[in-house]
Amino acid sequence: MNKIKIAIAGYGNVGRGVALAASQNADMELKYVLSRREPKSVDTAGMAEVIHISDAEKIVDETDVLIICSGSATDLPVQGPQLAAMFNTVDSFDNHAHIPEYFSKIDNAARLSGHLSLISCGWDPGMFSVNRVYSDAILPCGRSYTFWGRGVSQGHSDAIRRIPGVLRGVQYTVPIESAVNEVREGNIISADSHDRHRRECYVVAADGADLGRIENDIKEMPDYFKGYDTTVYFISEEEFNEKHTGMPHGGFVLRSGETASGKKQIVEYNLKLESNPEFTASVLVACARAAARLARDGSVGAKTMLDVPPAYFSQHSSEELLKNFL
Amino acid sequence: MNKIKIAIAGYGNVGRGVALAASQNADMELKYVLSRREPKSVDTAGMAEVIHISDAEKIVDETDVLIICSGSATDLPVQGPQLAAMFNTVDSFDNHAHIPEYFSKIDNAARLSGHLSLISCGWDPGMFSVNRVYSDAILPCGRSYTFWGRGVSQGHSDAIRRIPGVLRGVQYTVPIESAVNEVREGNIISADSHDRHRRECYVVAADGADLGRIENDIKEMPDYFKGYDTTVYFISEEEFNEKHTGMPHGGFVLRSGETASGKKQIVEYNLKLESNPEFTASVLVACARAAARLARDGSVGAKTMLDVPPAYFSQHSSEELLKNFL
Repeated sequence: MNKIKIAIAGYGNVGRGVALAASQNADMELKYVLSRREPKSVDTAGMAEVIHISDAEKIVDETDVLIICSGSATDLPVQGPQLAAMFNTVDSFDNHAHIPEYFSKIDNAARLSGHLSLISCGWDPGMFSVNRVYSDAILPCGRSYTFWGRGVSQGHSDAIRRIPGVLRGVQYTVPIESAVNEVREGNIISADSHDRHRRECYVVAADGADLGRIENDIKEMPDYFKGYDTTVYFISEEEFNEKHTGMPHGGFVLRSGETASGKKQIVEYNLKLESNPEFTASVLVACARAAARLARDGSVGAKTMLDVPPAYFSQHSSEELLKNFL
Repeated sequence: MNKIKIAIAGYGNVGRGVALAASQNADMELKYVLSRREPKSVDTAGMAEVIHISDAEKIVDETDVLIICSGSATDLPVQGPQLAAMFNTVDSFDNHAHIPEYFSKIDNAARLSGHLSLISCGWDPGMFSVNRVYSDAILPCGRSYTFWGRGVSQGHSDAIRRIPGVLRGVQYTVPIESAVNEVREGNIISADSHDRHRRECYVVAADGADLGRIENDIKEMPDYFKGYDTTVYFISEEEFNEKHTGMPHGGFVLRSGETASGKKQIVEYNLKLESNPEFTASVLVACARAAARLARDGSVGAKTMLDVPPAYFSQHSSEELLKNFL
């Protein structure tokens, strides 16, 4: 069987994770990394040839699926449609409020050029979305909850690091245990994220910095921290390097429903991830397999994981799935 | 929008659950119950008209999808292909070892007559299968575990009740907590179900029965109990009626994998069900929606939940899913 030839656009944490994940999938062949940087400056440890993104058209014929690993804030809205006009693509656009608009842009670009794009892949959006849809369909009378953490939020960590006097900083989003226990018992709790999560911050401050002011700046920061139960720990650079440079994450989607006789039914999908970017990357690689198959079927335009049969993500044949997985 | 017209074949615990679940789905209309019993003797509390199964052809034009709620041991292998030749069908065939053979029989019958059959729906097989496939696709390097319970196993309860001197009996399959904790930490444990589950039996014995012999008959029963850590409790009929007439169940599918850098990633799908048959029925109704859509698309033959995009199970439009679920 021919391997699926993939390329990566953007070689940050997720891009490197995709290269690692591709190596675990025997039906995948990583060919290229597209980068905005000078190709010689990008080290893929020999896993792929690096091409400048302005030369993207040169690899079109040698690429079944391009996995775009750029950020959702400013890069994907521009790059996504451009690349969807040239390649079958997979991306992890995760700006939830803007997904319908992004979907529409990608759909236009991909349809015009006869390509297939699987957007907003990963775990949230992605596997969490898939589970929200299944559970809601099975238990139409009920409530759904999404909890994030315990894990590092890049956005909140960046926000801490912008405060004067902060040398290093990381923020963990932590589900509040009493709220977790309530929903696992099927009890109804506040739908507000503030009441379900607390925030733990580990900060290395500059010598002589005003720790009280830094702590206050964090706790009072609107949108990010204000309204949350936030704890700030000042630690040494050594402790920071030892304990806080990983990127763990996780969380769960839970639906608590009732069948018509009043019986309680609880469905939970739970992730515990030592590496958030590597797990996201692993989902993207499975999505690249699905995208290659959808494209082979003649499917064009934008799709999400909600539009793809589970079997399309799998390396195993239909016969193996019937026999060993069903 | 036209409602999806459904009928139920077989009105036991699951069939009654389907009638209840249909009432929670505004796009569904339950029309008929097909039964082998004398129609007048089947009480649907006015939810559906009862038709003798020998008159099934009379309701063909008024039924979009027939949900077959018969048992997998002897009924479905015969009824399934017959009904798949007349209707689009959904069933919960759960005899894992015989699924490929059953699939093939149904596929032939459904293709010949131009119908669509979604087989082996429910939670295991069903949602557990779906989650086994997703997790294996995302984390190809790892191990998968399925735990059942705490819940009532009908097969084991029936086996207890066949023992002389047993008036009432129920068996709960219970995951062994230490094994659960091991896999949730990502540790590798025995793949053998004996090492992961214990069995709790509650028995009402006849007056003067030899309790020691009953206990021994249970514990030594091959296939069902021998090799398991089994506990037998003799209780009064009152206690039995008060505590052991429900049909709770549940369990979880867990995959513990590693990305190529050695990071541990754990995915768990967990169910806690106060009523096993009503949850199964709720899945079957969502599957009936999917089957109606697949049939509308022109799809024929046998399929499983692995072949169906998640969005097909949902009442919500593509726009709503993009906006509120992704």
